[in-house]
Amino acid sequence: MSELRDAALQYHAEPKPGKLEVNITKPTATQYDLSLAYSPGVAEPCKEIEQNPDDAYKYTGKGNLVAVITDGTAVLGLGNIGALAGKPVMEGKGVLFKRFAGIDVFDIEVSTTDTEEFIQTVANIADTFGGINLEDIGAPRCFEIEQRLKKMLNIPVFHDDQHGTAIIIAAGMMNALKLQGKTLEEAKIVCLGAGAAGIASANLLVGMGANRQNIFMIDRQGVIHSGREGLTKEKQAAAVDTDKRSLADACEDADVFIGLSGPDLMTPEMLKSMAPKPVVFALSNPNPEIKPELAKETRDDVIMATGRSDYPNQVNNVLCFPFIFRGALDVRASDINMEMQIAVVKALADLSKEPVPQSVKDAYGKEDMEFGPDYIIPTPLDPRLGERIPQAVAEAARVTGVARI
Amino acid sequence: MSELRDAALQYHAEPKPGKLEVNITKPTATQYDLSLAYSPGVAEPCKEIEQNPDDAYKYTGKGNLVAVITDGTAVLGLGNIGALAGKPVMEGKGVLFKRFAGIDVFDIEVSTTDTEEFIQTVANIADTFGGINLEDIGAPRCFEIEQRLKKMLNIPVFHDDQHGTAIIIAAGMMNALKLQGKTLEEAKIVCLGAGAAGIASANLLVGMGANRQNIFMIDRQGVIHSGREGLTKEKQAAAVDTDKRSLADACEDADVFIGLSGPDLMTPEMLKSMAPKPVVFALSNPNPEIKPELAKETRDDVIMATGRSDYPNQVNNVLCFPFIFRGALDVRASDINMEMQIAVVKALADLSKEPVPQSVKDAYGKEDMEFGPDYIIPTPLDPRLGERIPQAVAEAARVTGVARI
Repeated sequence: MSELRDAALQYHAEPKPGKLEVNITKPTATQYDLSLAYSPGVAEPCKEIEQNPDDAYKYTGKGNLVAVITDGTAVLGLGNIGALAGKPVMEGKGVLFKRFAGIDVFDIEVSTTDTEEFIQTVANIADTFGGINLEDIGAPRCFEIEQRLKKMLNIPVFHDDQHGTAIIIAAGMMNALKLQGKTLEEAKIVCLGAGAAGIASANLLVGMGANRQNIFMIDRQGVIHSGREGLTKEKQAAAVDTDKRSLADACEDADVFIGLSGPDLMTPEMLKSMAPKPVVFALSNPNPEIKPELAKETRDDVIMATGRSDYPNQVNNVLCFPFIFRGALDVRASDINMEMQIAVVKALADLSKEPVPQSVKDAYGKEDMEFGPDYIIPTPLDPRLGERIPQAVAEAARVTGVARI
Repeated sequence: MSELRDAALQYHAEPKPGKLEVNITKPTATQYDLSLAYSPGVAEPCKEIEQNPDDAYKYTGKGNLVAVITDGTAVLGLGNIGALAGKPVMEGKGVLFKRFAGIDVFDIEVSTTDTEEFIQTVANIADTFGGINLEDIGAPRCFEIEQRLKKMLNIPVFHDDQHGTAIIIAAGMMNALKLQGKTLEEAKIVCLGAGAAGIASANLLVGMGANRQNIFMIDRQGVIHSGREGLTKEKQAAAVDTDKRSLADACEDADVFIGLSGPDLMTPEMLKSMAPKPVVFALSNPNPEIKPELAKETRDDVIMATGRSDYPNQVNNVLCFPFIFRGALDVRASDINMEMQIAVVKALADLSKEPVPQSVKDAYGKEDMEFGPDYIIPTPLDPRLGERIPQAVAEAARVTGVARI
């Protein structure tokens, strides 16, 4: 780890601090240029926007600008390290938005953990942007923050830790279930971890046809069942009528395991107790709930995904967030709704079934990339993502009436 | 105007909307690069910053990043057009910050005009930045907003419409008074306009040695004298004991006229009534309080400045704000205090007395640029500004103990 540590610190510090800069896109050589960029010429676009607010999309960077906003309460696997300490991650998100989808990002670190104040702060600065990506905000605050802001604002608000993760999981799962000869409607699903990603994944899977009563969510106190008291609003909605109480109980005869929790929490015995041809997404990073080697050793009919790039089937949010925002911005969508999210799921699942371009195989130094147990999700460096996903998103936005152009 | 209008709208719209973009400064070609820019490598700088918040200056863009923040209540000469309609101006400010001082700017449009809420919003996002430039916020709200934020935050907060303007006025005035054989201490000064720039100019001139009782501020109700009721806190502090009531009264025997108000408000009679060798800064833009041609025709012993680039002696904030922030950021100053502002005044005044480089004369197509009545202020395209001003600011920050490195 020390080698990675040194390299990462050097990468961030040299030759100058950080990873992003703001550049001028128009001529500024002459006094005349400056008289257009600033006073007196700049008054003209101002007057146009005053008359017609949508002209902000014509004369300013708003339409290609996404805010990546955090309160620093749930940064990566680091936890509540504070907004400022989360800044490298937010800037990193900006790097990925630009690198994969050409989207400009302002990272905004918000130094309050008061929910109301956070919501008001974001709402107050929202005019600046074409969309808002909420990032690394702890559960359950993140649910209320996102829902409230979605209602208040006429630009897309998207909490990537919830929906980005959920979308990739759902895409991989559709393909895994297909390969195992199972259907989402019938699948018994165990989800270990009932935070932002867990709750959103369950909701998305239900939105796609899964049976809520077949999804067993598990938090630190065990299975979330309808007899439990003191559940948050979100957990209440996810609770099922069941006698199962422990992770081991839940795994028995389950078709799918989704791990969004911590290292090595799934034992070989639990895996053995699952139904034939199980699907195991062990997404704790860097150490999964069960190591792929151990899982395969335990039973060879398993299909696995992890959060790591050095195993097959990496569940990686970068497959979604740059492209879902690209599609939303392209049609000035007022929202990123469930239909747009499901459109990404389907586009990703479909893309996995197509032949992989040689350039992608070369980029990863792998020849064996074709649809099957070790390739159920596209890879981040696949250039087709930037065409397919935004198109699918834009189309879903049009169909559901949230596209504004 | 229609030609400028078309050119300005086209400039802002094509080939793509706006004037700024966010770019990546580090390699992102390979999966390894991305593992440094984002997960897992990015956790390392996060942990460093969590331990030592100042490391944000080492590993993120914070130290070169200024927020240009408005509520859109006093945009250019357009007035209260709202924050969103002010976005082209804020982005334009970003263009100037980058073009002249290499500073990255996030423009932030804040959609509340509630003073408390505005202050809280800015304070909540301040960790993101190395400094805050408040812009186009109406008086008297701007005074309280700036003062409160300066106390709350450990990064520089600077309301350019107040202090940027005041600094250039003061620099030009020092040189004009010198040429006229007068001193700031004795000068009788009329300031038409008691908004952000007027109040700040009076305060700065007093800070530099002017006598408060010699500065007659005039608002729409006439001279601000100590017998007037219903004055704001700032106007109370600026009120003088005097029998003068009108602009004409105030101009009589005055040495200096500063116009920060509207077109043609100074009559030839007023100018005639001023003391010998008067100094007239008619800064209303684009139409000054008295046209330079009329002023010169009225009396030939006047030294004039305007806000326009097509007359000599343009009072232009761009001579100050990029460089005062450059100096402040270079030493991680916790504040931009009065001493740092006076350092800019002196550096600008001194620079005006030095021979102008041929390259600058060429840029303006003028040969007659040397210290005298038609050259009391440097020009924006003078490359020496970027050396002298930040150095002077940094030095003043060190001397006054607000430099943090």
